[in-house]
Amino acid sequence: MDRDEQGIALAVSTVIFALRPASESESAALWIPLVRRITEPFENRWAIPGGWVRGEESLADAASRNLLETTALQPSYLEQLYAFGGVDRSPTGRVVSIAYWALVRADQAAQAAESDNVRWFPADDLPELAFDHNAIVEYALWRLRTKLEYSRIALAFLGETFTLTDLREVHEAVLQRPLDPANFRRQVEGSLVPTGHVVTGGRHRPPRLYRYNETVELVDNGPLNHTAGSHRVVD
Amino acid sequence: MDRDEQGIALAVSTVIFALRPASESESAALWIPLVRRITEPFENRWAIPGGWVRGEESLADAASRNLLETTALQPSYLEQLYAFGGVDRSPTGRVVSIAYWALVRADQAAQAAESDNVRWFPADDLPELAFDHNAIVEYALWRLRTKLEYSRIALAFLGETFTLTDLREVHEAVLQRPLDPANFRRQVEGSLVPTGHVVTGGRHRPPRLYRYNETVELVDNGPLNHTAGSHRVVD
Repeated sequence: MDRDEQGIALAVSTVIFALRPASESESAALWIPLVRRITEPFENRWAIPGGWVRGEESLADAASRNLLETTALQPSYLEQLYAFGGVDRSPTGRVVSIAYWALVRADQAAQAAESDNVRWFPADDLPELAFDHNAIVEYALWRLRTKLEYSRIALAFLGETFTLTDLREVHEAVLQRPLDPANFRRQVEGSLVPTGHVVTGGRHRPPRLYRYNETVELVDNGPLNHTAGSHRVVD
Repeated sequence: MDRDEQGIALAVSTVIFALRPASESESAALWIPLVRRITEPFENRWAIPGGWVRGEESLADAASRNLLETTALQPSYLEQLYAFGGVDRSPTGRVVSIAYWALVRADQAAQAAESDNVRWFPADDLPELAFDHNAIVEYALWRLRTKLEYSRIALAFLGETFTLTDLREVHEAVLQRPLDPANFRRQVEGSLVPTGHVVTGGRHRPPRLYRYNETVELVDNGPLNHTAGSHRVVD
């Protein structure tokens, strides 16, 4: 077969998570931004942000560019998830989509203004999406929840310093279950470093601020690891 | 951009591991089959088996077909590894390659006759390969070694039943270090079921045969899990 006879188009799609409370009274949960499709196929259906890969850009660059163009978001963490290549996933011709997943902090998420065609949805309660995007989100959720257990990926949701309560609330929101504070402290203590500072504000026993031990990789992806500041992109 | 203007070709490549002793006197190690390229680019250079994806086949089907055509191998385990999409990875035009990794048992590996253009190499001691294939093998080795620790993937190297020594030798060969037999037994016991049979042959204390507890998934890939007999393919 000649390479020009394939007729396969190459796209990227990104599932991007932020933690936000559903309302003033509720605790934080995972939300993802979706983009309303304005063309066929699946016109008017919600979809995860994405688009075509250009000939001169890497896959991760294509994911970042499409995310910025569609949602104005620049994630603090971006990692390849999986190549979805089912023969029938698009009704208008074969498309293989390289899916990425990304995390943004709440303050970064707030920069992405909602509009008629961009809206945040609770990750565990989505409408029926375009293409196989529900399956892509489901896999991304599973990857995030698995990875939280054995990496310091929660950092991507927090600032550089945080209290033990901040960190526990990230874990509770991602895993969707309450965690015992004393057990949680024992589990994470080894990977944290006290900053010597506390939360200011005049409380009698102000909570201590921690940061992650930076000798531990954010995520261990073996030979693919490539860290540039807190923005980590693997292609 | 129009999807037809991309000029990106889509390939699959598979790193396929078997355990074989280097010689009669040596213990087993990981070997992979390589295919000698007979066209440019990289003519005469060794490469991992692969080829183009056809418009009507899934990515995993393309990986299986190319593997069978080039090496006559049909792996007992096949899983997507990563999409390699660097802009400059091929000197003759943009190619994105979806890499898979696979495992075969020694008896399956023996069916793949070597020829001038197909040869087995020790996975940790390869020549300079075509394209970015050395990096792909390095990442596959890392994935295999990581996954061995938290899944029952060693099964793909063994028959349905095996002794504790068989299983330990697989772990030692993959991890390339000796393991303490008593510690190893304690670590794996929970995931094994005694078959009630022993190795025949008239020894005084014949070793017991075990199988894996089948309520444990071969590998937990979350929503992507899809098991069909012992041949497991995720697309």
